Amino acid sequence: AAHRARVMEDYGRFLALLASALLVGFVSVIISLVWVFHYREGLSWDGSAGEFNWHPVLIIMGFVFIQGIAIIVYRLPWTWKCSKLLMKFIHAGLNTIAMILAIVSMVAAFDFHNAGNIPNMYSLHSWIGLTAVIFYCLQLFSGFAVFLLPFAPVRLRAALMPIHVYSGLTIFATVIATALMGITEKLIFALKNPSYSASPPEATLVNSLGLLLVVFGSLILWMASRPHWKRPPEDNAKILRPIGAAPEGTEVESTMTNSSNADKSDLRSNTEEAKKQNIKFDEAGQRSTM
Amino acid sequence: AAHRARVMEDYGRFLALLASALLVGFVSVIISLVWVFHYREGLSWDGSAGEFNWHPVLIIMGFVFIQGIAIIVYRLPWTWKCSKLLMKFIHAGLNTIAMILAIVSMVAAFDFHNAGNIPNMYSLHSWIGLTAVIFYCLQLFSGFAVFLLPFAPVRLRAALMPIHVYSGLTIFATVIATALMGITEKLIFALKNPSYSASPPEATLVNSLGLLLVVFGSLILWMASRPHWKRPPEDNAKILRPIGAAPEGTEVESTMTNSSNADKSDLRSNTEEAKKQNIKFDEAGQRSTM
Repeated sequence: AAHRARVMEDYGRFLALLASALLVGFVSVIISLVWVFHYREGLSWDGSAGEFNWHPVLIIMGFVFIQGIAIIVYRLPWTWKCSKLLMKFIHAGLNTIAMILAIVSMVAAFDFHNAGNIPNMYSLHSWIGLTAVIFYCLQLFSGFAVFLLPFAPVRLRAALMPIHVYSGLTIFATVIATALMGITEKLIFALKNPSYSASPPEATLVNSLGLLLVVFGSLILWMASRPHWKRPPEDNAKILRPIGAAPEGTEVESTMTNSSNADKSDLRSNTEEAKKQNIKFDEAGQRSTM
Repeated sequence: AAHRARVMEDYGRFLALLASALLVGFVSVIISLVWVFHYREGLSWDGSAGEFNWHPVLIIMGFVFIQGIAIIVYRLPWTWKCSKLLMKFIHAGLNTIAMILAIVSMVAAFDFHNAGNIPNMYSLHSWIGLTAVIFYCLQLFSGFAVFLLPFAPVRLRAALMPIHVYSGLTIFATVIATALMGITEKLIFALKNPSYSASPPEATLVNSLGLLLVVFGSLILWMASRPHWKRPPEDNAKILRPIGAAPEGTEVESTMTNSSNADKSDLRSNTEEAKKQNIKFDEAGQRSTM
């Protein structure tokens, strides 16, 4: 009973953090809309400032908020009864949506620059932002090829999973850093009379947006890096994993101890021994380990 | 022999990453000096632009480079023969130096603003930067009180260590993001005729500095988050830990299996059983676990 109380308390803590992240992310999107509609020129697609305004809105909605949700989607406890394959499709799908929104938002910025004869790609914001988008695309395609398509050997999956997790979190942090540079640039360029340094209400609002993006990123990184909030191994999918039990055990290890009843795996092998071996590595390759 | 080859290969990989991080960090400091001496007004302490220039130089030297080294100092294999207490003093000492340099660099920025009647604390850079410095100080003082002073119960250490590691890495990432915003601001304000958007050599050099800071941060975060590069538990200090052996085992777990010969611990207990228990938690509380 005491053990069950601890599990529920931990579950409640996860839900509280999730609710906070959703709230902070949602408020960030709202503030970006208030920014462009109340203080700026609204949204349009005609090469004017209204087209540029899609840039912050789509980045915050897609490249920050949706990417953040995609990162933690395996950790939502009510998805543990869904198949791992379905969750992979949701993870890949959300990241694909985020990638498309990021690319459209870049097109909006380039269009606006070109229409106004403003040079492209001169700022640190543009250098790091473009680098982040390129790495994000590479991450998405390599993740698709290795973890979703059924061709990659399980040993390769096991070897690449820590790199996939590390790259994903590092790109996410870099995207938020790039958004902060973008906010800095835009407020300096857009605020004249009163200038940014006079702290008009728009500056205070959008600075607060920047702070919220840091809070959102910190919440996602905390949730994504707690070992005991991982999706349990496939054969444990229907029971809540106890908190105390090897929260940071290697996947190989924790799966080894359970491999006897891992009969739900879709792997096909000839011998029982090879099958167990495959399941062991498959779990290792498919579950996120930093 | 094959096992030993794997250990050495892994050791070589760590050294290669460490050398890369040191090189990138060192080049970043050099570029910051080239920036202020070759392109800007050099260094002085008289309220002029030369005083402001201490701000980027000290931040990159102290708050980025030295903080980065402080983060990975426990992971240097040749320090594993040193006592844990000595390493804690080095970790705390490097972080104290970084904190002092960060504070002096902030004073330089405030002095420069005040001398030139430029408002303080209006930009997102200043909001997030000051927040990061405050959290850094809190982290340093709480780390000192909990992990260095001998008063904290081992269970408290065990409970706070994951938070200490997470906060440390998140603050470090936030500091780099803040540096990128600072570079963006400074290049926009300082470059007139040719402007930042005309990409003069100074802009290209300092954008490259920003990219190097991201590379440096990424290298440090990779090294700090590989479980198999952790300092081994105290009683294993003199042997290299095999790669394959439970690289991500919980501290409690991995220490439990070794607690029989954990006689080097400086803990004093009455019974053998209580002593083992204490060592177990003490290791858990003192070794970094994300």
